[in-house]
Amino acid sequence: MKMTFPDKSVREYPEGTTGMEITKSISEGLARVAIGIFVNEVPFDLSRAINNDAEIKIVTFEQEEGKQIFWHSSAHLMAEAIESLYPGTKFGIGPAIENGYYYDLDLPDGVKLANEDLPAIESKMKELAKANNPYNRIEISWQEAVDFFKEKGDQYKIELLEGFKDQEITFYQQGNFTDLCRGTHVPSTGMIKSVKLLSIAGAYWRGDSSRQMMTRIYGVTFPKQSLLDEFIKLKEEAEKRDHRKLGRELELFLITPNIGGGLPVWLPNGTIIRRKLEDFIKKELLQRGYVEVITPHIGNLNLYKTSGHYPYYSESQFAPITVEDEEYLLKPMNCPHHHQIFSSKPRSYKDLPLRLAEFGTVYRYEQSGELSGLSRVRGFTQDDAHIYCTHQQLKDELINAIELTQLVFRTFDMPVKTRLSFRDPANPEKYAGSSEVWDLAEKEIQEVADMMKLDYFIGIGEAAFYGPKFDFIVKDAIGRKWQLGTVQVDYVMPERFRFISILIEHYEGNFPFWIAPVQISILPIGEGQFEYAKTLESKFKDLGFRTNLDDRSERVNRKIAESEQKKVPFALVLGGKEAEAGTASVREHTKGDIGVKTIDELIEIFTSLNAPGKSH
Amino acid sequence: MKMTFPDKSVREYPEGTTGMEITKSISEGLARVAIGIFVNEVPFDLSRAINNDAEIKIVTFEQEEGKQIFWHSSAHLMAEAIESLYPGTKFGIGPAIENGYYYDLDLPDGVKLANEDLPAIESKMKELAKANNPYNRIEISWQEAVDFFKEKGDQYKIELLEGFKDQEITFYQQGNFTDLCRGTHVPSTGMIKSVKLLSIAGAYWRGDSSRQMMTRIYGVTFPKQSLLDEFIKLKEEAEKRDHRKLGRELELFLITPNIGGGLPVWLPNGTIIRRKLEDFIKKELLQRGYVEVITPHIGNLNLYKTSGHYPYYSESQFAPITVEDEEYLLKPMNCPHHHQIFSSKPRSYKDLPLRLAEFGTVYRYEQSGELSGLSRVRGFTQDDAHIYCTHQQLKDELINAIELTQLVFRTFDMPVKTRLSFRDPANPEKYAGSSEVWDLAEKEIQEVADMMKLDYFIGIGEAAFYGPKFDFIVKDAIGRKWQLGTVQVDYVMPERFRFISILIEHYEGNFPFWIAPVQISILPIGEGQFEYAKTLESKFKDLGFRTNLDDRSERVNRKIAESEQKKVPFALVLGGKEAEAGTASVREHTKGDIGVKTIDELIEIFTSLNAPGKSH
Repeated sequence: MKMTFPDKSVREYPEGTTGMEITKSISEGLARVAIGIFVNEVPFDLSRAINNDAEIKIVTFEQEEGKQIFWHSSAHLMAEAIESLYPGTKFGIGPAIENGYYYDLDLPDGVKLANEDLPAIESKMKELAKANNPYNRIEISWQEAVDFFKEKGDQYKIELLEGFKDQEITFYQQGNFTDLCRGTHVPSTGMIKSVKLLSIAGAYWRGDSSRQMMTRIYGVTFPKQSLLDEFIKLKEEAEKRDHRKLGRELELFLITPNIGGGLPVWLPNGTIIRRKLEDFIKKELLQRGYVEVITPHIGNLNLYKTSGHYPYYSESQFAPITVEDEEYLLKPMNCPHHHQIFSSKPRSYKDLPLRLAEFGTVYRYEQSGELSGLSRVRGFTQDDAHIYCTHQQLKDELINAIELTQLVFRTFDMPVKTRLSFRDPANPEKYAGSSEVWDLAEKEIQEVADMMKLDYFIGIGEAAFYGPKFDFIVKDAIGRKWQLGTVQVDYVMPERFRFISILIEHYEGNFPFWIAPVQISILPIGEGQFEYAKTLESKFKDLGFRTNLDDRSERVNRKIAESEQKKVPFALVLGGKEAEAGTASVREHTKGDIGVKTIDELIEIFTSLNAPGKSH
Repeated sequence: MKMTFPDKSVREYPEGTTGMEITKSISEGLARVAIGIFVNEVPFDLSRAINNDAEIKIVTFEQEEGKQIFWHSSAHLMAEAIESLYPGTKFGIGPAIENGYYYDLDLPDGVKLANEDLPAIESKMKELAKANNPYNRIEISWQEAVDFFKEKGDQYKIELLEGFKDQEITFYQQGNFTDLCRGTHVPSTGMIKSVKLLSIAGAYWRGDSSRQMMTRIYGVTFPKQSLLDEFIKLKEEAEKRDHRKLGRELELFLITPNIGGGLPVWLPNGTIIRRKLEDFIKKELLQRGYVEVITPHIGNLNLYKTSGHYPYYSESQFAPITVEDEEYLLKPMNCPHHHQIFSSKPRSYKDLPLRLAEFGTVYRYEQSGELSGLSRVRGFTQDDAHIYCTHQQLKDELINAIELTQLVFRTFDMPVKTRLSFRDPANPEKYAGSSEVWDLAEKEIQEVADMMKLDYFIGIGEAAFYGPKFDFIVKDAIGRKWQLGTVQVDYVMPERFRFISILIEHYEGNFPFWIAPVQISILPIGEGQFEYAKTLESKFKDLGFRTNLDDRSERVNRKIAESEQKKVPFALVLGGKEAEAGTASVREHTKGDIGVKTIDELIEIFTSLNAPGKSH
C-alpha cells in the first residue's frame, strides 16, 4: 500500500503496517518522540495497523495535535494514579485542554482533596509512568461496556454510554486502569517524563448546576523536564504580569459588584493610559483621512434586525429595554450605527472613500462566572472604523488600514503575524456569496499581503461567513499569542479587542514613558530641598509631564521604594548638593541609578521619550 | 386701612379703595400702564375693592406677572373675536404661556381654520380692542354657571365646572363674551395695542388622546407696537439660529428613528466641536487639580437605590435590564459611580480634596412627543465633577469650581448671572438636614459670592432638597436666558446641560475659529492654481489647522458661496497673481473681503485665533 507524506513523497509498505513501523522506517530518533499518526486526517494510535493507501502525518509534542494526544494520555495516567490511591473513585470526563488536561472525579465518601494532596498524586503518576505501560486500544460491544461500568459502579460512564448507543465503543487500558475512550493515545506511559498538578476546582457534572458537584484536578505534563521548567517559569511570569493584579496595585481600574461585574471603572491612572492611547490612535487616524464620529450606546432593536446582526449575536446580548412601543438594545457592535451615518445623505462617488472612526463602546452578555478583569467583560470600547469605498479603491484602503494596525503593534514592540483567513472550500454552504466573488476577494487579499511583504500564513476555514479577512496575531513580551485586530473585506473594520489588558501584561505595568500615568517622581531628601523640588515640579508640569512630588517627611529610601512599587519611570532624588547645583540624582525604574543629571539634560531625555513608540 | 408698598413705605387709604385708585394716587403715568395689583401676594383686578391692611405690589407689562395677566386677557379677547366670527364655537381652556397665550376651540361643524384665516381673526381682535371694553368680574353661583353653559351648549365648560363644585365661581365678561375664569385681567381691552396670531395646532381635550381633538390657536399681544416688532425680530432670529436646522445644514448631528428618537449621532463636524470643547475643558480641569475618570454607562440598580437617587428619578428613567438575577439601569447620573471610586480605598485627610471629573453620559426617559433636537434628548453627556473635601477646604473648592464655570461662559462671550438658590424658610419640611446647617451653608455661599464679586441674586425656594446651590444663568447672543450650570454644596457638581444646542444657536453656526469643524477653505480659481493650493493645504494641515481644498472645476464664485454657506471662518481665493506672489485673497466669513495677505501673515492670524476664547 502507498503512504503519502506531508511533503508529498510516497513510500510503499505491506498492508497492515503500523504507524510505529512506518515511523521507525524513517528514523529511530523520530520513533522515540512520535506521539501519534494522522491517517487521512484521522488520528491513529501508532500501534494500530493501517490497511489502505493513505495520506499520513506523524506528530510529536512539537505540534499542537501531538500535545493534545500527550495530555489526553496524561489524564488517563492521573486517573490510574487516583484509582490506585483512592479506590472506589468514579470518573466523569478527562479531556486535554489548551495548557494541559483535567479530570472530573467523584471521590469515595469521606475523601476530600486539597492542594497538599497533589504531590502524592504526582509521585504516583511518575511511578506509573516509569513502569512504561503501553496504552492498549480495546474494541468492545456496547453491552459489554455497560456491564463493565455497572460492575465498577461508575454511573457517570454509564450515562455517557447512553449517548453512544449506535456507535463503535472502544476502551483504552494502561496498567491497572481502563477507561471508556475514543483515543488517540501515546504508545506508552514512559513518554511522560515530567508531571505537574496545577489546581483543584469544583465542577458540576455535565456543567449542570442541578447535578453532582465533582472534583476537578488540572495538570500538565511534558516529555522533558526542561519543558516543564520553562512552563513553570512562564506561568510565574504570567502571574506576576496578571493585569488584574497590576490593575489593582497601580490603581488603573476598579471592578465592583456595586456597579456591576464585567463593567470596569477607569480610575484616574487608567484613564490617563486610555486617553494617551486614544490620542495616539486618533492622530494617526486623522492623518490617514479618517473622520471621527460618536454614536449612542443604545439603538433601536430594528436596526440590528435590519442589519442581520440580531439573530446572529442574540445570545451574547443583553435583553432589550422597552421604551413606549419600541425596543432598544445596548449596542453589541458599531457597524449599523456607522451605516446609518453613511446612508444619512446621498453620497456620490466623489465622496468616497468615506472613513468613519469611533472609539465605540459595545456590550456583550457574558455569564458572571466567566468574567475576568479586562479580558472578559460586559462592556468594552473598540477603536472601530468602517471604510466605504469603490472596488477600485479597495487595495489602497486595505493597505492604509493594515499599515495602521502594523504601526500600532510596532509602537508597542509586539511582533505580529498576519493570518489570511479564507473560506473552507469543502464547506461552501457556510459562506454567503458566490464562489467567484470569494475567489477574487481571496486573490486580492493575498496580493495585498504580498505587496506589503507581510509575515503571513493562510488560515483555511477562518473566514467570516460574509467575507475573508486579515487577522493579526501578536506575541507579547513573554511569548503568548493574542489575536488583536482584524481588517475585514466586507465590513472593513480594524478593531482591537480588550487591548489594554494585554498591554498591562505585556509591559508588566512598566508602561513606556509616554503613556505612564505618573512619569516622574520628585523626591526631596529633606525639608531643605522642598522649595527646589517645587520649582522642578512646576517646571516639568508646565512642559506637560505628569509628575508626583513626594514631600512627606519620610526617609528618602522609603520614598524611592514606593516610587518603584508604583513603577514610575523616573525618580529624581534631590539632596542638598543637587539643590545647590541645580541637578538631580536620577533612578530609572527599569535600569536603576543612572547618575546625576542637570535639569536641561533631564528635559532633553524626557522630551525625547514623550512620543508614541519611544522607549527607554 | 394701611397699604404697604414693596419699598416698605406705607400709605393710608379709605376701606374699599380699588387698586386703580391707589395706582392713580401714585402717578397717572403708572395708572395708564398698570395691569393688576397683588394684595398679600394674591392677584386682584385693579377695579376690585380692597378692604383690609395689606402688602401690595402694582404690576405692569415689565414684570413677568404683568405679562401673564396681559396675555390671559388677550386669550379672552381672541375668544370674543372667534365667537363673533364663528358663532357656535365651544371653548376649552385658554391660558397664558411663556411667550403669549393659546385657546383650545371646538369649532362649529364644517369650520376648519388654517393659517390664512388668522389675519381676519387678528383684525377682529384689534377692532374689539379699540372698543376698549372693560373686563368685568362677576361672582355667580355654581348652578347659575352650569345653567349658563348648558344654554350655550358648551360641554367643556360644564365639565370644568364639575371640578369646582365647592368653590367660589367667577365669570369674566368683556364686550359680548363671557367666560368661566378665576382672573385676574387687565382693566380693559384698549390696553392691547398690537396682536399677532402665531400658529394653529391640534390638541386633545385635557391632553387625553382618547378624547376630542380641538383646534389650538397660539397668539401673542403687546401694549406697544414696538414690542411686537421686537418680538417678531427675535423670533425670526431664533428660527434662523435653530440648532436643529443648523445641525442639519452644517452636518453636525443626526437624529434618526432607525437608531432612536432623542439619541443624537455626532457626525464628523459635530464630533470635532465636541472634542474641541472637551479638550478645552479637560485642560482647564487638569490645571485645577481634577483627575479624569471613565465610568460605565450602566450600573446595578441597587447602586441607585443605596444612593437614594432611584425613587427620586424613577419616572425619568428607562426600565432596568435584567441580567441573571440582577437589574441594571442605564445610568441617570454619574454621582453614585464617582462615590464608588471615592470609597474604593481608604482615604486619609491628606488625600483630600479629591476632584473626580468625567465626561459622563447619562440617560433620562423623555416622552417621544417631547423630544427636540439636542435640547430634549434621551441620552446626553455632561462634564460632571465631584469634589470630596473637608469643611475647611469648602470655600476654596467652591471658588475653584465657580471660577471654572465663569471661564467657560466668558470664553463663549455669554454674560452670566448667578442665582444663589436658597431654601424657602416657610416650607422647612421640604428640605433635609437641620436649620442650623442650612443657615451656615447659605451664609458661606453668600460669602463666597461676595468674595468673588459675582453678579448674583438670591432665589428663595430654589435650593435642592439636600442643599443650597449656585445656579448660573447665561444670556445668549439674542438675549435668551438659559440655566447652564450648577455648583452644589452637598454634591459639588458643576454640570452643563445640553450646552452644545445653545452654543450652536448662540453663534448661529458661526463657530469661533478654534472650534469650527472646517477652519479654512482653499479655493483655487483655475487648474493653474491647483498645485499652489495643495502646497498651502499641506502647510496649514501640518500646522494643525482644519482645511478644505475645493479643487472642483467650478466657477470660483460658486466655491465662495458654498464656503459661506458652510460658515467656514476663512476662504482663501487663489488666482494666478496670488500663486505667483505666494499670497491669498482672503474673505472672512463674518466680515467679508479683508484683502490680500502673505502666507506668513495668514499663519500669524490663524495661530492667534486658534485658542479658546479668541475670536475674530
